[in-house]
Amino acid sequence: MALIVQKYGGSSVADPVRIRNVARRVAEGAASHQLVVVVSAMGKTTDSLMSLAHQITPAPDPRELDMLLATGEQVTIALLAMALQDGGLKARSFTGSQAAIRTDCGHTKARITQITAERVRQALDAGEVAVVAGFQGLSEADEITTLGRGGSDLTAVALAAALKADVCEIYTDVDGVYTADPNIVPDARKLGRVVYDEMLEMASLGAKVLQARSVEFAKKYGVTVHVRSSFKPDPGTLVTKEEQGMEEVVVTGVTHDRSQAKISILRVPDRPGIAAQVFGAIAAKNVVVDMIVQNISRDGYTDMSFTMPRGDHARAVSTLEEIARSIGALGVVHDERVAKVSIVGVGMRSHSGVAAKMFEAFAKEGINIQMISTSEIAVSCVIEDKYAELAVRTLHDVFEVGKGVNR
Amino acid sequence: MALIVQKYGGSSVADPVRIRNVARRVAEGAASHQLVVVVSAMGKTTDSLMSLAHQITPAPDPRELDMLLATGEQVTIALLAMALQDGGLKARSFTGSQAAIRTDCGHTKARITQITAERVRQALDAGEVAVVAGFQGLSEADEITTLGRGGSDLTAVALAAALKADVCEIYTDVDGVYTADPNIVPDARKLGRVVYDEMLEMASLGAKVLQARSVEFAKKYGVTVHVRSSFKPDPGTLVTKEEQGMEEVVVTGVTHDRSQAKISILRVPDRPGIAAQVFGAIAAKNVVVDMIVQNISRDGYTDMSFTMPRGDHARAVSTLEEIARSIGALGVVHDERVAKVSIVGVGMRSHSGVAAKMFEAFAKEGINIQMISTSEIAVSCVIEDKYAELAVRTLHDVFEVGKGVNR
Repeated sequence: MALIVQKYGGSSVADPVRIRNVARRVAEGAASHQLVVVVSAMGKTTDSLMSLAHQITPAPDPRELDMLLATGEQVTIALLAMALQDGGLKARSFTGSQAAIRTDCGHTKARITQITAERVRQALDAGEVAVVAGFQGLSEADEITTLGRGGSDLTAVALAAALKADVCEIYTDVDGVYTADPNIVPDARKLGRVVYDEMLEMASLGAKVLQARSVEFAKKYGVTVHVRSSFKPDPGTLVTKEEQGMEEVVVTGVTHDRSQAKISILRVPDRPGIAAQVFGAIAAKNVVVDMIVQNISRDGYTDMSFTMPRGDHARAVSTLEEIARSIGALGVVHDERVAKVSIVGVGMRSHSGVAAKMFEAFAKEGINIQMISTSEIAVSCVIEDKYAELAVRTLHDVFEVGKGVNR
Repeated sequence: MALIVQKYGGSSVADPVRIRNVARRVAEGAASHQLVVVVSAMGKTTDSLMSLAHQITPAPDPRELDMLLATGEQVTIALLAMALQDGGLKARSFTGSQAAIRTDCGHTKARITQITAERVRQALDAGEVAVVAGFQGLSEADEITTLGRGGSDLTAVALAAALKADVCEIYTDVDGVYTADPNIVPDARKLGRVVYDEMLEMASLGAKVLQARSVEFAKKYGVTVHVRSSFKPDPGTLVTKEEQGMEEVVVTGVTHDRSQAKISILRVPDRPGIAAQVFGAIAAKNVVVDMIVQNISRDGYTDMSFTMPRGDHARAVSTLEEIARSIGALGVVHDERVAKVSIVGVGMRSHSGVAAKMFEAFAKEGINIQMISTSEIAVSCVIEDKYAELAVRTLHDVFEVGKGVNR
């Protein structure tokens, strides 16, 4: 009998009707497997709780915010356990604290330190479906903590690791990971399998099915993750470790991210400490920078460019304009109408010329490349936003991603 | 520095604006006292959660229902702690579990078995206001439990006992305990003080400021309870132990209850075991009977009458009609248009003739008495509902309750 951890997100449990649907889905699995089910807060509950907090104070204390937010998942686990029982199953709900999901003391963005899950094991041994609140834990100081964005996925993957589950199933509103966005590329193909590193690149590149943090955890502990649809029974995409014979495919997927903005500081004096000064100032404003590109300097000056979430853009520009003045740079230019388009694939490691082929494809279509950044298994280009769809389709075609053989 | 436990009910914390008002009230007290603040769920939250549960299943598991309901108070404590912090106070919230309010395993109606409140003490020692979730605890099996109706009052009184607080202040939407309902008796007077036994009679007789269960607990542990208004600063009514010199007043208050119905079984064969059979059948339907009156039998037959909450009336009648047939009684008569009017006062113990004076007053006004029931410190009569106001005013006048001297 396999042990499976299933995770259902907020939209899958948004109201009592959907919770009953999830219960039916869980019951199907429970007929032949031991099941741990991790759930998020119902629908927009977390947003509503945040709004309540902000009606009280502009800057809620993180410890009290966690106390507040943790109620969201607690409501869902109780209701789902009731729905499972109503369907004749034995079920029992557990808060993060009861499941012994221990974290550090970093309220609102705690990191999991240990999971004993003793009571979850006991429930499984007793033939019960264990329903566990995602997103929350208990700190070393015995305080209720929350895990931050994507926390419920992380709870599921971490529980799967702790319980040595056979697979961690993440149920979402898409039915798997695609070679490209099917809305843009009609012949995009659902991947049967991607390896952790590819998924990590895709997650950070804007394919939002799974948070990078959960993939890292899965990779570290070798948890096989199955991303699949809440609504359809078909298998989705397995996220797993690399295996022999997987390198035949050069490019596994083409991703894009249209939620970023680009900023450049022009003619920055090229001396030690300048980069630290610039990025220190941005970090102090809590802006998370994605790409950073700095070319070689000429005449003692260089240009520095970076991308960041569009929402942080205005804040970053004003900060950088100050910095530019103080370090004697020429000035700051910025652009919100950009898109980042990337190719991802572990097969790139052993194939040279992949980047060149990408640039050539862009050139043929008259798409100007504004920034380039590469990792071992990905190449990303920032281009003008209006070319985003064309670029994705072109790359999907050029690298024959839709015709993948063994994945 | 006195230690005070304050309790604010659901209507006092129904929305963020009211929570901020409570925070201001707490801040005033915190200037000169150590404070523990117990709160209920916001407004109608508990009802909404119950409704969610019933959208999932008609008969929710009690353990899961407690898991669900406990979130209501958890939301309030977090928001109140934030509001206190926003006002510059040090504050920290605690769930029932964190406050170590231990209970038995009777889910949805658990009984408190022990309170160590270690973390609450630590918070007080650190100069913090401790904000504690009412209505909830942690069972011997480490499960979240709730205490049932009036549970938040009980949490407050029990915490006051455990912490040896100087007083337990219960903030409500009335400003104290009155000699009679001021809506009926214009010269009804707010009592400065009532003793536990009087309050118990009043609570069970329909003066709804404080649940009987909390008063019993306060009496057992000698906790002084101060019932006062959430909206006005004036002192309310102290509920306390009996003291010398308090017996000068014969009748402390006149209460009434118009939420009951009366049922009689006529010509019941008077033989051993009959009463057990009748009340066993009613109890099996979860009907809580209030008054029971049975007179001496004549010719081997007697009549049995009782009162119960009006909502249980129909259920009880159909059960009793069956029983009446099976035991050979003549039949069942019932009446929903009744009121119970009572006089309460520890002074009655040492004064004879109190009941007689009550009956005489009713006679003078032409009010027919349908049932009579007495305790050591109360006399209750069931009368036709239309006479309820007249009866209350008459008794308030005859016993000169409005002119109380020392209370």
